[in-house]
Amino acid sequence: MRQADSRPSRRAFLGTTGAVTAVGLSAGCQSRSDRPDRSEAPAPTPSVSPTGRYQAGITLPQPAQRSLLAVVADLADGVSVRRLLAELGEAIRALTTGTDARLMGLEPGDLTVTVGVGPRLVRRVDPALPGAKELPRFSRERIAPRARGGDLLIQICAGDALVVPAVAAALLERAGDRIRERWRQSGSRGANVPVERGVSAPRNLFGFVDGIVGPHTKAEQQRHLWLAGPAPVAGGTLAVLRRMELDLPRFARLSVAEQEAVFGRRRATGVPLSGGTIASGPDLGAKTPDGRYLVPADAHARRAHSAVVGVGLMLRRSYSFDQPAPGLLFISFQNDIRTFTNTLTRMDASDALLPYTTTTASATFLILPGFDAQHPLGSRLFR
Amino acid sequence: MRQADSRPSRRAFLGTTGAVTAVGLSAGCQSRSDRPDRSEAPAPTPSVSPTGRYQAGITLPQPAQRSLLAVVADLADGVSVRRLLAELGEAIRALTTGTDARLMGLEPGDLTVTVGVGPRLVRRVDPALPGAKELPRFSRERIAPRARGGDLLIQICAGDALVVPAVAAALLERAGDRIRERWRQSGSRGANVPVERGVSAPRNLFGFVDGIVGPHTKAEQQRHLWLAGPAPVAGGTLAVLRRMELDLPRFARLSVAEQEAVFGRRRATGVPLSGGTIASGPDLGAKTPDGRYLVPADAHARRAHSAVVGVGLMLRRSYSFDQPAPGLLFISFQNDIRTFTNTLTRMDASDALLPYTTTTASATFLILPGFDAQHPLGSRLFR
Repeated sequence: MRQADSRPSRRAFLGTTGAVTAVGLSAGCQSRSDRPDRSEAPAPTPSVSPTGRYQAGITLPQPAQRSLLAVVADLADGVSVRRLLAELGEAIRALTTGTDARLMGLEPGDLTVTVGVGPRLVRRVDPALPGAKELPRFSRERIAPRARGGDLLIQICAGDALVVPAVAAALLERAGDRIRERWRQSGSRGANVPVERGVSAPRNLFGFVDGIVGPHTKAEQQRHLWLAGPAPVAGGTLAVLRRMELDLPRFARLSVAEQEAVFGRRRATGVPLSGGTIASGPDLGAKTPDGRYLVPADAHARRAHSAVVGVGLMLRRSYSFDQPAPGLLFISFQNDIRTFTNTLTRMDASDALLPYTTTTASATFLILPGFDAQHPLGSRLFR
Repeated sequence: MRQADSRPSRRAFLGTTGAVTAVGLSAGCQSRSDRPDRSEAPAPTPSVSPTGRYQAGITLPQPAQRSLLAVVADLADGVSVRRLLAELGEAIRALTTGTDARLMGLEPGDLTVTVGVGPRLVRRVDPALPGAKELPRFSRERIAPRARGGDLLIQICAGDALVVPAVAAALLERAGDRIRERWRQSGSRGANVPVERGVSAPRNLFGFVDGIVGPHTKAEQQRHLWLAGPAPVAGGTLAVLRRMELDLPRFARLSVAEQEAVFGRRRATGVPLSGGTIASGPDLGAKTPDGRYLVPADAHARRAHSAVVGVGLMLRRSYSFDQPAPGLLFISFQNDIRTFTNTLTRMDASDALLPYTTTTASATFLILPGFDAQHPLGSRLFR
């Protein structure tokens, strides 16, 4: 992924300032609201290029934008997948660069749109391709038929919450009756906690930092995140979306120490119970003087640990929500679906966190490789 | 409403910085993510005091916080309204000052919780009181029975989207089976556009600045916003909530000039079509050389103009949403319900904006006067 321009544009900066005003509201920040933040500014430069080797909205921007809307839809019979995706790619370029009138004059800013195709469409091309398999069923699911699976994922993220629905409306209108929406979930991320150089992560509704471990370096991303092949999917990745309602009242009744035992980390700092810094891997062998594990046997940080499960790293990019009930839209990206399925299978057995969750939607998608003028979105896969 | 401390606390400032990181993500802001924004900071000072003459979350903070959740519920039979409200007030104080464990260690920051009671409860006290009347039906409504009316409004707003659902869960747990949730709507506000000194307003999903006109000065608020009496409701106000789905695709197909004719204002700047600045009142008599009104006869800025309708000013504090479909949770506060009902009646006749909306929830509440240690929430009204 290349960034079109690593310098923030003036407009992007002013947009950021506007956000400070909206969030900060304290006396020290109040004067900033005198600065105009939208009117009569020059055409915006996208913060994250919509085109390139990889799609935007996965590793970039970092940290992830504040607002998300994920729309999962099915394709109508007889629709040309190739043409639909090419048109969506065109629209994404126009929206991201602010040249689409359907943005209603809103600034796209750090808008990203990420498109994936579901197993049914992948199998049509080749059942041996990554992304061709549906997710299995797991425990603690309460999933309506329409909220399981789907042909198309449109993941829209932006710092400006207003931009997200405008972009969704524009893309859904472009697709027209070629697609039928199955479910959607909007979500937010709060303030970010720094993890390591260039990487930070938000808290979830349980108050714990979420998404600390992941393929954060380029080398890790090559190994664990991006598909290296076969050629039609190289530069893509596999997404898993799991919408989970969280039992906040029950979790809140635990003491902080009990909550920390569930996660295996300190709530305030994200540091593993075995010590170190937030970026330290949990020391799974470390014990108290009386022989108990510092990171309990059923702690989430242990049960979901990639070395314990024996899988690669997953990039998590989850968003919290409170509509229709409080929860987490878990989103992970990985180049081997077993990274997710083996982890959740192991969590199913005894993860202390799982009983506080109920999954109400579940889907996996092949995130298409990046696109550009020569290679329309999806054109490498659908011919 | 007094602010407990007009200086931003160190923690509040760092929280703001975190927000910049989350929103900005451009290279120039990246280094800020190295600053810790939650861990090991001193106890927070609420940005807006939960107690005082008026409830928080109406005129303060200005601008309104980025995230909102409105929960509308009914009371079970036989519940002591006085005791329930007093307990909610206690919980609000604890949550707002960050001393409630159910915040899960999240910082309340600029959290506000605003509580209102519905017409049924007001009528029980005295059918002549403000807030005793249900809203009438209007056109362009598609409202399920459970989304019309309600006994209790809990409006939760915060800059940190994570805080909102945690607070909702804590308050709903405190209320327990004494209340039964009817509907909820979360919403967001994007960047704010400055209107006049100390006042700014966000855009709605149509791309137009929303909430420009209102009782912004203390004198206007005394006249149009706060109830002066009778004594049990003095310092309160009347809220109207209308959840509207917006037809974005159809509106987006209009040219910018056509969109501006619908609102009667410039989309980019918020300036009335009759000229001036965003803070200028529309000149409803101004005409083009060929005799057409600059602000068209059916423009929203004309149809909803308080002088045209013959009512007072309403304070609008609306939030946008995209779940379950894109829309606006219209929220207004006024001390005479006719300010709202007469305006909407007049809009019903011919407002150009109305055909792009469908209202899916509607309710009005008496917002209780502010409270303090000597006067628990609701204690002046319910004995």
